[in-house]
Amino acid sequence: MNDVISTIIEHRSIRYFEDKPLSDEQIKTIVSCAQSAATSSYMQAYSIIGVKDKLCKKKLAELAGNQEYVEKNGHFFVFCADLYRHSVIGENEKKNVLPSIESTENFMVALIDASLAAQNAAIAAESMGLGICYIGGIRNNLEEVKTLLKTPERVLPLFGIAVGYPKQITDHKPRLPFEHIYHENEYQQDKEVYVKQLQEFDEVVSSYYEQRTGGKRKDRWTEQMAVMLERPNRVYMKDFVQINKLDLK
Amino acid sequence: MNDVISTIIEHRSIRYFEDKPLSDEQIKTIVSCAQSAATSSYMQAYSIIGVKDKLCKKKLAELAGNQEYVEKNGHFFVFCADLYRHSVIGENEKKNVLPSIESTENFMVALIDASLAAQNAAIAAESMGLGICYIGGIRNNLEEVKTLLKTPERVLPLFGIAVGYPKQITDHKPRLPFEHIYHENEYQQDKEVYVKQLQEFDEVVSSYYEQRTGGKRKDRWTEQMAVMLERPNRVYMKDFVQINKLDLK
Repeated sequence: MNDVISTIIEHRSIRYFEDKPLSDEQIKTIVSCAQSAATSSYMQAYSIIGVKDKLCKKKLAELAGNQEYVEKNGHFFVFCADLYRHSVIGENEKKNVLPSIESTENFMVALIDASLAAQNAAIAAESMGLGICYIGGIRNNLEEVKTLLKTPERVLPLFGIAVGYPKQITDHKPRLPFEHIYHENEYQQDKEVYVKQLQEFDEVVSSYYEQRTGGKRKDRWTEQMAVMLERPNRVYMKDFVQINKLDLK
Repeated sequence: MNDVISTIIEHRSIRYFEDKPLSDEQIKTIVSCAQSAATSSYMQAYSIIGVKDKLCKKKLAELAGNQEYVEKNGHFFVFCADLYRHSVIGENEKKNVLPSIESTENFMVALIDASLAAQNAAIAAESMGLGICYIGGIRNNLEEVKTLLKTPERVLPLFGIAVGYPKQITDHKPRLPFEHIYHENEYQQDKEVYVKQLQEFDEVVSSYYEQRTGGKRKDRWTEQMAVMLERPNRVYMKDFVQINKLDLK
């Protein structure tokens, strides 16, 4: 196993960091790694906002559901899908690019571009001995996040990544069985096999929680998912996305 | 610069591969790296289809716009956003998860999860001396791709990654200036600065093409983007996504 693969495999989310900021050089390296990711049709349809300001971080932490590690870390990156840039380009080049920019296709492109860049940033940070945690919680209150970070129309903050010197080492969380995530040649739709794989994974997750909590918790994964998904979350998202002139047609 | 960072920075798209398939062990390592990526609320909302069958690859290559490297490579991975799994879970656990699964929020989650996994796979493959190329072209004809790969409702093939032993080393493509992609504390909306950064990048891209083609090509990036985006692409996407019961509300 080479260093790259072991860095990738060793990933776990870190939620407690030393009170030590990243250096500008570290930030630059991480962003430069993000930018090295592939980008659909060379579009580079994303932006990164690095939050250093303490008050801004405190406010973001509140907006993300009082997650302390959004405030207390070495640096906080916000990854945004960004088609504002391309609207400015359209204006300057005097081409009507709006139908394109407002399409579901390019909404997807921007999400994919931002996510590929983010994962490069995450792996780069981890390779430097730093810990990371993705923060989807910034999507709890995007209107306020948008005002705080002054993002224009057609820019959608997707998630944050808290980065810092780890204060605590956490466990790996088990993943779905290889055979369930990976299909050969075609999607395996045999329901019996499919459900059996889920049951096997339920046992793995259940004993993971049992061991970790000294028997207090032993929820199955499918149970956890069903309970969580029964209550729709961030139901304002479609409107928010469309008000920001993305994913319209 | 450590090995991980240099692997990331050294990325370039490879489109010509030796006629040598990846081993099952290599495939397993790559998928296992994909699965190690962070996943929103532990949802693991993606699947990977590995295409080995020669006829299937040939057909995919045609559907992706006759891209030869979709057919001729060491292995072809298709990354899919997948909320079908969670619909099966809802049935089995007798919870109504459909409003959740059909929301824009979870459409975004599935796209992000699939993309983070894919980028781990890409970096892992590159660290093993393999070359990769992302293939957005599979989105040209998703109805046919869906039939070919037998993906159920709520599964959306997003892109492929062709992987293999590189037959040709290509150049790095320049990226937008650091200051343009990376904002501190808030999105820099000063239009004059913003446009100046784009002009600077135009010069970089223009001389990149000039050098690479012996003067035959010297398009600016913003020109390239405007020309491309003037013609909307994959306009069927919104309908396709919604017919597949994703991103509905």
